[in-house]
Amino acid sequence: MRTPQPNEAVKANVKQTRVLVIEDNEDHWALMNRAMQQCLSEVTPILATTTIEALEIVQKYSIQEWELPKLILLDLYLPTREDGCEFLQQIKSLPSPCSQIPVVVLSASSDPADISESYQYGGSSYIVKPTDFSGWITYFNELRIYWWETVTLPPINLSI
Amino acid sequence: MRTPQPNEAVKANVKQTRVLVIEDNEDHWALMNRAMQQCLSEVTPILATTTIEALEIVQKYSIQEWELPKLILLDLYLPTREDGCEFLQQIKSLPSPCSQIPVVVLSASSDPADISESYQYGGSSYIVKPTDFSGWITYFNELRIYWWETVTLPPINLSI
Repeated sequence: MRTPQPNEAVKANVKQTRVLVIEDNEDHWALMNRAMQQCLSEVTPILATTTIEALEIVQKYSIQEWELPKLILLDLYLPTREDGCEFLQQIKSLPSPCSQIPVVVLSASSDPADISESYQYGGSSYIVKPTDFSGWITYFNELRIYWWETVTLPPINLSI
Repeated sequence: MRTPQPNEAVKANVKQTRVLVIEDNEDHWALMNRAMQQCLSEVTPILATTTIEALEIVQKYSIQEWELPKLILLDLYLPTREDGCEFLQQIKSLPSPCSQIPVVVLSASSDPADISESYQYGGSSYIVKPTDFSGWITYFNELRIYWWETVTLPPINLSI
């Protein structure tokens, strides 16, 4: 269905990698985790339920860069929008390569202010959470095709 | 094939919008323009061949925000990598909403330094340019599905 990716950098994306999911809603996490197992079976999801825990995880893994997550999925309301925005600012001000990890913001909200601020503070893209499991499957299939088969993610494994 | 998007913010993405393409290679632009006509017929591509021209276009359209491009596709080598990186820094330091426009970096290069710096300076994602027209079709179909049908783009039409 899709043409094979021609270059080594793209191929490197599909190797076993971690995705950090920052989510404080147990039900949403359960749906996301199931959808990821189905659509992104080659990646290992790591859950953080607070932004403090998420930053600790990023800093722990940054000691050995190959362990760093390749992508971050951030729930914006943790529990308030300000928490999600503060996390974006914090991760983007960390030293490279932590600051390079793309952060996809997920939220049930479609409030224009939430969307604007997510992009303003460095979110790579903003996705309104789907309302049922089939919607999560659609979205995670799309995340896989975009981030692992189309885009070349930051070469964290290779950088100094 | 895809489930309908439930919310108005997502629906607003598919309206007639502009995409700013910054590309100094005539052959690449010809391929991209043809692929966009085929895959993204609802958007109007605007070409800038230099970063100076691109910034002038963004600033001209920012007078009436609804005219601003919803997405920027940036060739990194314009003609050097430093030109592309400088543009990323410049657009990200403009006032909102110009700074919120996602910038997808495109390049023939798969050099890890190019990829790292593109993310470092605020690129939303990095795509290695395909080598033939069918590759461009695949990629522009994917850009359409991701940025117009999955992601909610910055609400430029609505913000003050």
